[in-house]
Amino acid sequence: METRKYTILLLLFVMCFATVKAQEKAPQATWIWYPGDYEIWLSNKMQARRTERGAFLPPLWRYYSPYALVTFRKEFTLPAEDEISIFTEGQFKLQIDGKQQHGSSQKVTIPAGKHSIVIKVYNQERVPAVFIQGDHLVTDESWKVTFEDKEWIDETGKASDQSGTNWEAVGTWNFNTPDDLPSAFRLATTPQYAKEVTPVGEGELVDFGKETFGYIRFHGLKGEGNVNVYYGESEEEALDSAFCETLDYLSFDGRQETEYTIENSKAFRYVQVQHDPGVSYDSVSMLYEYLPVEYRGEWNSSDELLNEIWDVSAYTMHLNTREFFLDGIKRDRWIWSGDAYQSYLMNYYLFFDNASVRRTLLALRGKEPVSSHMNTIMDYSFYWFVGIYDYYLYSGDEAFIKNFYPRMVSMMDFCLERRNENGMMEGLPGDWIFIDWADGLSKQGEVSFEQMLLARSLEAMAVSAEIAGDQEGHEKYQKLADEMKAKLFEVFWSEDRQAIMHQRVDGKVLDNVTRYANMFGIFFDYFSNDQKQSVKQSVLLNDNVQKITTPYMRFYELEALCAMGEQEFVLDEIRDYWGGMLDLGATSFWEKYDPGESGAEHLAMYGRPYGKSLCHAWGASPIYLFGKYYLGVKPLSAGYETYEISPVLGGLEWMEGKVPTPDGDISVYCSTKEIKVSADHGQGILKFKSKSKPKTDHGQIKALGNDEYELVIAAGKEYMVKYKAVK
Amino acid sequence: METRKYTILLLLFVMCFATVKAQEKAPQATWIWYPGDYEIWLSNKMQARRTERGAFLPPLWRYYSPYALVTFRKEFTLPAEDEISIFTEGQFKLQIDGKQQHGSSQKVTIPAGKHSIVIKVYNQERVPAVFIQGDHLVTDESWKVTFEDKEWIDETGKASDQSGTNWEAVGTWNFNTPDDLPSAFRLATTPQYAKEVTPVGEGELVDFGKETFGYIRFHGLKGEGNVNVYYGESEEEALDSAFCETLDYLSFDGRQETEYTIENSKAFRYVQVQHDPGVSYDSVSMLYEYLPVEYRGEWNSSDELLNEIWDVSAYTMHLNTREFFLDGIKRDRWIWSGDAYQSYLMNYYLFFDNASVRRTLLALRGKEPVSSHMNTIMDYSFYWFVGIYDYYLYSGDEAFIKNFYPRMVSMMDFCLERRNENGMMEGLPGDWIFIDWADGLSKQGEVSFEQMLLARSLEAMAVSAEIAGDQEGHEKYQKLADEMKAKLFEVFWSEDRQAIMHQRVDGKVLDNVTRYANMFGIFFDYFSNDQKQSVKQSVLLNDNVQKITTPYMRFYELEALCAMGEQEFVLDEIRDYWGGMLDLGATSFWEKYDPGESGAEHLAMYGRPYGKSLCHAWGASPIYLFGKYYLGVKPLSAGYETYEISPVLGGLEWMEGKVPTPDGDISVYCSTKEIKVSADHGQGILKFKSKSKPKTDHGQIKALGNDEYELVIAAGKEYMVKYKAVK
Repeated sequence: METRKYTILLLLFVMCFATVKAQEKAPQATWIWYPGDYEIWLSNKMQARRTERGAFLPPLWRYYSPYALVTFRKEFTLPAEDEISIFTEGQFKLQIDGKQQHGSSQKVTIPAGKHSIVIKVYNQERVPAVFIQGDHLVTDESWKVTFEDKEWIDETGKASDQSGTNWEAVGTWNFNTPDDLPSAFRLATTPQYAKEVTPVGEGELVDFGKETFGYIRFHGLKGEGNVNVYYGESEEEALDSAFCETLDYLSFDGRQETEYTIENSKAFRYVQVQHDPGVSYDSVSMLYEYLPVEYRGEWNSSDELLNEIWDVSAYTMHLNTREFFLDGIKRDRWIWSGDAYQSYLMNYYLFFDNASVRRTLLALRGKEPVSSHMNTIMDYSFYWFVGIYDYYLYSGDEAFIKNFYPRMVSMMDFCLERRNENGMMEGLPGDWIFIDWADGLSKQGEVSFEQMLLARSLEAMAVSAEIAGDQEGHEKYQKLADEMKAKLFEVFWSEDRQAIMHQRVDGKVLDNVTRYANMFGIFFDYFSNDQKQSVKQSVLLNDNVQKITTPYMRFYELEALCAMGEQEFVLDEIRDYWGGMLDLGATSFWEKYDPGESGAEHLAMYGRPYGKSLCHAWGASPIYLFGKYYLGVKPLSAGYETYEISPVLGGLEWMEGKVPTPDGDISVYCSTKEIKVSADHGQGILKFKSKSKPKTDHGQIKALGNDEYELVIAAGKEYMVKYKAVK
Repeated sequence: METRKYTILLLLFVMCFATVKAQEKAPQATWIWYPGDYEIWLSNKMQARRTERGAFLPPLWRYYSPYALVTFRKEFTLPAEDEISIFTEGQFKLQIDGKQQHGSSQKVTIPAGKHSIVIKVYNQERVPAVFIQGDHLVTDESWKVTFEDKEWIDETGKASDQSGTNWEAVGTWNFNTPDDLPSAFRLATTPQYAKEVTPVGEGELVDFGKETFGYIRFHGLKGEGNVNVYYGESEEEALDSAFCETLDYLSFDGRQETEYTIENSKAFRYVQVQHDPGVSYDSVSMLYEYLPVEYRGEWNSSDELLNEIWDVSAYTMHLNTREFFLDGIKRDRWIWSGDAYQSYLMNYYLFFDNASVRRTLLALRGKEPVSSHMNTIMDYSFYWFVGIYDYYLYSGDEAFIKNFYPRMVSMMDFCLERRNENGMMEGLPGDWIFIDWADGLSKQGEVSFEQMLLARSLEAMAVSAEIAGDQEGHEKYQKLADEMKAKLFEVFWSEDRQAIMHQRVDGKVLDNVTRYANMFGIFFDYFSNDQKQSVKQSVLLNDNVQKITTPYMRFYELEALCAMGEQEFVLDEIRDYWGGMLDLGATSFWEKYDPGESGAEHLAMYGRPYGKSLCHAWGASPIYLFGKYYLGVKPLSAGYETYEISPVLGGLEWMEGKVPTPDGDISVYCSTKEIKVSADHGQGILKFKSKSKPKTDHGQIKALGNDEYELVIAAGKEYMVKYKAVK
């Protein structure tokens, strides 16, 4: 017993000591930079890696540039003397308490007390960045930065006291050691091996079993001569050396490494390798390249096909979640705002990786002055605003909006200045009106879809203005949003057609109904209940209205139907459409799928036989739909402080899954008889329909009438509800 | 005789052949880039080379960044098939006749006929640039470029036909071979050797005999250990290892080259070298670093002191004429708009190097959006406008104004938006009102000097708008200029003091007269003749008005006096002031000189013992004054198409010199009895006073009365005038 007592005492002592040590531990330092500049630099680099048959193929739109000279600043109080170590990307000038430090020492000792530190960093080639580690003073998100330190001295050496400097919050990511240089960032890699190798002429066709991305490697490479590598997302493409979209012509002089890795990573499932007789190798493998993110979202159900669709969607989404959210990994390997917008939404139900959303939003926005729409596309400017609103709703990240609100304002100024005399957006020279890839889709005149996105963007601005503390802006944008919405219905709503018409040209609304504005109007909640019901019949379920063939717009079409309670219909559509791709052997989802096409027609696009991307982020929308409209989880207030769970089986026997939130997960199981939910954070409301009086082990179920029930969900408990599902 | 005949025939044959060859010679290709971007990049690099006691010391103001992705374009017609060689700084994408060229070949053959070429170049680290050499197609100033090619393709691969792209004229300099990469630009160097070496402690003091700039070299360097190099523009500075402004701490491990050159060039006359016993060297020399420019302007006179002042001025000017016009070579080694403005003017009378003016104007302007005054100084924004006007007047370079007029407009927009409710410029937070280094000079409220510079800038805008074909802008700026001038006199002219008052604060004109606006008003020709005469007495020659102590403002003060015919007085001032520096051993002219100071006081500034620059461009103004107000040469219309020669001896027995023009020189000799002039181009008017009736060998002298005469000067003739100078 004595021994045990001492052991306990000893344990207590150790625990106390550990606590003291933990308190003494220096705070975590991180590399800091001018906000958005790293994202611009990294996206420039990344988007310049695309090649087309060996030729460099940069994005169509403009590149922004980081500032080469920036000034970082912090005021701080030291409890004790602190020796700080300074690491920079670039040359630096250091001022402590207003005094320039001579020399270029990386170690400086600062006495206890109140101080200011100012450090200017210059780097023309990479992004100026700084990492300071002391016991107390470290670089972190509390630092400020400016690209224009309006400071000068007079003849006597006295600094100006009237400052016009605009200090902003620094940018950071996850570079948390001195050696982890932001400019040296690389995605993670891991080796992967061929599933099958087949001879082709003198060479071979290597099949990696599924769509993938990375660096082809040769093992045991010897000799001199040329090696040609033809990549294919399909077997047809890899075998077609004359038309495959990507290739590498390698030339070896005998002095190469025997383990040789090709420099530029690419998207493929197959590679065809042909080589000169003088050169040989033992085998071909690859380094799979990926962003390390956790699959936090989960989905499982009684339908194996849907489970496979979710899995392939998640893989498609992961392949396209890289330095930034890409449209597709073979093509374009670029950041398109409209495509990225869908990735944000899918991300909230899969990775919940806020950093990827922020990086992508910042890379897209670039800097002042705004000289064109995002990616030159009008709709893509608007998706950016709406994407910020959604980001805030899901993440609760107010700091992001506070920091970047000025860039939202200048972007919106650009849009508003381009309105015509009716206050509507219409394509001006240089404006691309995209909407969707669809045969004969007119973009002429005032397109209702664009006006609706503008209205939604103005609402996003109104919310953001409030968060940023700009009350005047809040009122201005809210008024503009209200006016735009009113005008939208006044001009485009047809009582006759019970739909929003597609466009007005030269003051005349044309007799043309498309799905776009009508489906967005539903989940934007712009329609009255009556309008919603009519639009469902007159547009959504009306085969006479031109069908949508891209998964891009299928995303919104199916969302609109789900928002109208058509989950069962939508599941059938998903089984047909996504299941159709799986039937054709898809291992990731495509840029476009037309069930009416056959054979190699499925591979062609843009007039090129393999122009179509077979791994396109917008193909992964089931992740979003399953999480939001079947598990039925969505935030009601920013950062899931309050949220709703409205599970809808849509004809399934059962389903279960997890939805990630900023602070833990929300778990849902739902069968026709039982609902089980639990959440790590926030306050939820479970909504469901039951034909019998439901029972629960915790809390009080509230009957709303009409078979509808509600149960308040508190964090940290598991709720089990016994009920009888309404078919 | 026979032999001779054949020889002549042979010669004729060779000459014909040579002519044919010359016609066949391919046109000169040159590297091209986005206009202004190379200047921004190079100036960033150059201005980041300043150090202070080993510490990096970048400019106070913001840095701009070049575009990383630009698109070049040309439409052309080939008389025959042409094989072009493509060289780029960066990766490139090539389109010929709208078709993407696969691969990355540097040689492309284009058939005869009409074509278009589009080449996109990406470079994140250096400025994207391209050099194309064919027999017919070459990169030159006729190419266009954009940073935003608003081009896209639809689903079928068809390119958009509605372009919003803004194509601009490319930038060039003198990089005329494929190997002469813009990014590899270095100034020229040549070895120079010590004039005297004196032991100092264990080390030595090396005197290079005069102010110079370059790289210190060690010959026969051996062993291991530290070598410290202390630089001094003065002996005192080099000997004061604790306070000298620049130094190098070198550390050798024994593996260094025996001929070792320090990496960063510096300004100095003296260096003190101290080294560890373990390291030794045979001798110290230097590599003098300079911009190769021709001294086209010349000056010589009966006064040896003035001749020396001109020579030292020219050397001072040359030392500061580098990648750009610097303020000073030790400090700041930066591009200050106000300092550069004087360099432009001096340059017109010395090098006439238009490229240096253009580079400097572009580096200063940077890009959109304008977020502060140039170098953060209000007056320095204005000097930039006036500098462009002068550049046009001297060079006749309309293309420059046409190309950069949009950047002038946005810079002026920035200024105009900062006017107060009286339409006047007043310092806002972040605005530095510099004017001059002068004790107690008030910058509060509405300063008349700034309003006068604004008026002049608006005049420059009015002229530029006309050249750029913006008639509306022309009228707008002319009206604003007229209003500003009227307001200037209405508010600040004091009948009582017969002067422009210094400032108005809170609606009240203060009882303060300074020289600034009064002297500028004279050579801007803003005063009536009566006002001019009174201002001369009440301000310029009035010792009660605070004296000017910087050569910077002495420049304008003396110019104003010269413009009033006070050449004799001014020569005395020059002999005193610049002669005073020479008496103190100056080998280049200083940032500031106060005859009242003595000894080491002359070296101190900004609270630092060697803070003063002893080689400052603004110290070289005699070059300008001698050329413009003694030789009396100035353009009357752009590019010296017409010009004036009004020689004024100012008490000299004789003087002679050359003034460079865009197309040859203007030569002037003048004694009390003879004037000889000749010019290579343009039409001049010689103006002079004579007490007797003058005679000439060419043309007709016109008597204007009042002893004044005129003679029209045609190009290519030498004119000799016999006359009798008016004392």
